[in-house]
Amino acid sequence: MICEIVCVGTEILLGDIVNTNAVYLSRQLALMGISVLRQSVVGDNNARLTEMLKQALDRSDIVITTGGLGPTADDITRDKCCEVMESSLVLSEEIKEEIEGYFVSKGLKMSESNIRQAYVPEDGIVFRNHNGTAPGFAIEKNSKCIIALPGPPREMKPMFEEYVRPLLRKYSTATIVSHNIKMIGIGESVMAEEAGSLLDGENPTVAPYAKDGECFLRVTASGNDEDEAEEKAKPIIEKITEKFDKYVYGIDEENIESVLVKLLKKHSLKISLAESCTGGYAAKRITDISGASSVFDCGVVSYSNEIKNKILGVNAEDLKKYGAVSEPVARQMAEGIRKLSGADYGVGITGIAGPLSDNTNKPVGLSYVAVSDKNGTECIEIMTARHDRDYNRYVNGSRAFDLVRRKIIKDYERKAEKQ
Amino acid sequence: MICEIVCVGTEILLGDIVNTNAVYLSRQLALMGISVLRQSVVGDNNARLTEMLKQALDRSDIVITTGGLGPTADDITRDKCCEVMESSLVLSEEIKEEIEGYFVSKGLKMSESNIRQAYVPEDGIVFRNHNGTAPGFAIEKNSKCIIALPGPPREMKPMFEEYVRPLLRKYSTATIVSHNIKMIGIGESVMAEEAGSLLDGENPTVAPYAKDGECFLRVTASGNDEDEAEEKAKPIIEKITEKFDKYVYGIDEENIESVLVKLLKKHSLKISLAESCTGGYAAKRITDISGASSVFDCGVVSYSNEIKNKILGVNAEDLKKYGAVSEPVARQMAEGIRKLSGADYGVGITGIAGPLSDNTNKPVGLSYVAVSDKNGTECIEIMTARHDRDYNRYVNGSRAFDLVRRKIIKDYERKAEKQ
Repeated sequence: MICEIVCVGTEILLGDIVNTNAVYLSRQLALMGISVLRQSVVGDNNARLTEMLKQALDRSDIVITTGGLGPTADDITRDKCCEVMESSLVLSEEIKEEIEGYFVSKGLKMSESNIRQAYVPEDGIVFRNHNGTAPGFAIEKNSKCIIALPGPPREMKPMFEEYVRPLLRKYSTATIVSHNIKMIGIGESVMAEEAGSLLDGENPTVAPYAKDGECFLRVTASGNDEDEAEEKAKPIIEKITEKFDKYVYGIDEENIESVLVKLLKKHSLKISLAESCTGGYAAKRITDISGASSVFDCGVVSYSNEIKNKILGVNAEDLKKYGAVSEPVARQMAEGIRKLSGADYGVGITGIAGPLSDNTNKPVGLSYVAVSDKNGTECIEIMTARHDRDYNRYVNGSRAFDLVRRKIIKDYERKAEKQ
Repeated sequence: MICEIVCVGTEILLGDIVNTNAVYLSRQLALMGISVLRQSVVGDNNARLTEMLKQALDRSDIVITTGGLGPTADDITRDKCCEVMESSLVLSEEIKEEIEGYFVSKGLKMSESNIRQAYVPEDGIVFRNHNGTAPGFAIEKNSKCIIALPGPPREMKPMFEEYVRPLLRKYSTATIVSHNIKMIGIGESVMAEEAGSLLDGENPTVAPYAKDGECFLRVTASGNDEDEAEEKAKPIIEKITEKFDKYVYGIDEENIESVLVKLLKKHSLKISLAESCTGGYAAKRITDISGASSVFDCGVVSYSNEIKNKILGVNAEDLKKYGAVSEPVARQMAEGIRKLSGADYGVGITGIAGPLSDNTNKPVGLSYVAVSDKNGTECIEIMTARHDRDYNRYVNGSRAFDLVRRKIIKDYERKAEKQ
């Protein structure tokens, strides 16, 4: 089955917004084994949209549109989809009531033009919109299928999940499953080299990726159904996690901070953060996670030497002698915040994030990350050799989180296994 | 002049990467007064790319491609562009030497396949690539123009700036300038209502936008050259900044934090941050800016009540009586961090970021932001009515930064004007 994605909206052509709908839909369809041959963007223009939809239906079995379902005169997708599929729009009293209800619930007045959104294709399947007013729809005719979804991602994505994925299942010839085995502390080329012949398989395939200072191996398997595909992926995933045991922080996990917060919660442990170069970024990442308050009480952003000394108790002599970006300072920051907060783990992060160095001769991208716990303090040196401030700050946080993760695994999970 | 953008790459169709090239090019072309009628993405497939390029050249005057200029067999853009423009590829000894030099400088070995990249259209204009190996090119023939650029944004963007923008000037019938007048503390609908007839103009046009809890009015003017366009925009920009004086934090500024850091630097002032719900996000935003150390020494993420009391000196009775999310606590946090840090401004932020409420009955989206300075402490209540954690946390930081900005304007800029 061949699919095309047509995104409708002059604002995309003006470069005002990034077309994240296309990447989302492409990814979901790829995982269902449906090939996307084209993505297109066209403005809110009758002739051009009609031409594009006709061409797309000529070439492809399925055409998915996003955008242009709103209430105003330049929202033309509803009409044009019906036109090319030789269908007609009819008023749905049910949808009309829903839209009216939506406005009432928000305490807003509905304008007459909103009624336009209550018109649906007479022979179509209607998708209710629980996050806005414009319903979506599908029209299936003459072995072609056109699917119209709203433009705002927070309306489009839930609608895809609820209605479109089940609908498209019948068009999917194979089920594809894909798992990302995520690692920290190993480089992409070393990872690829060590993976060796694991990368040569055909089903599943294994592909190396790198992003934001992390690496991952993506295992993709196909089968007649999900179970069959999963069965094929399983032994390879096991081989990889065994081989890269030290580095793997999770499979299909969103990021290292969510893994760490889960682990801390599991063992009723707390973390505290003393940040210099990351300037609150590490604390921000931990508190991005709803419910982080059960594992995190306290962070200090000690951007100046004075504050490092005053609040965290870093030795003033050491700050002078070794400089703020040094192993002794990272260690004392970690120990200081642990003491101040009473948390199980104290983390200290200090480095030169760039793009410029400080007034020492230390290179941009050099950082020290220390973790203090009841057994002592461990410090690692990081050298990214990059002048990218955001990258360096992100990597420092990730490496710190991974260091804590490894300690928890060692002290609370492996020990428990041994007993 | 009508333009189409064709992005080549199977990885985009698989949803592995977001197509940021399309948004960049569209924006640049819009600003040059060149209309982009379509953006398309096609995979690394001979027949499909040829078909797409032919159709695009039929419809449009200018076709810009990105991607598919690499050294491997599936990099076909070079060949296909030549084919549809009836041109031939010839080996450029100069480019060949450059590519060899690039590999030598990186200490890498050049593979035979890289020589492919030294082939250029015999009647084309070649764009050198200073950030990679693949050169770009343009072929102009029969009043059509095809432009091929490399796929990686860090190669494509500088090449566009250096070669493509000057080349396209002759196709640009008008010069368009666009300015964003950014505001905090006013809603989009109120802003639009107050703007009234300002929104009705044709040249310049004024359009309202809202994003991440901020609003802006975009003024877009066209003229025969840049000066003429700027002259047209100027009086309207002045009218808007005067009318919305209280809310405007900048014109074409990237964000409120960069405006605030500049202002603090200008008056040699320092800020300190005590964060609860924002959990380090506000500090992160300030320290995103290189050189923030001259205005920022210290932040405390006091996520628990205990830490609010212990480090910031928030009264334990008040924490109990009013709860952590309350005006008295925000005020005491601001005062506490100001005292602890010795900074000119102390900021306290406490709120319920969501998606769930705390164990009180306070609504998600409720926050208190306080700023303490030598004249006293001011606190505002914010109610976003949204359950979006990231949005609420972002808005809290922005409102806090804007509150400090207003104080600096009042105490250091307006007073100076009066004297």
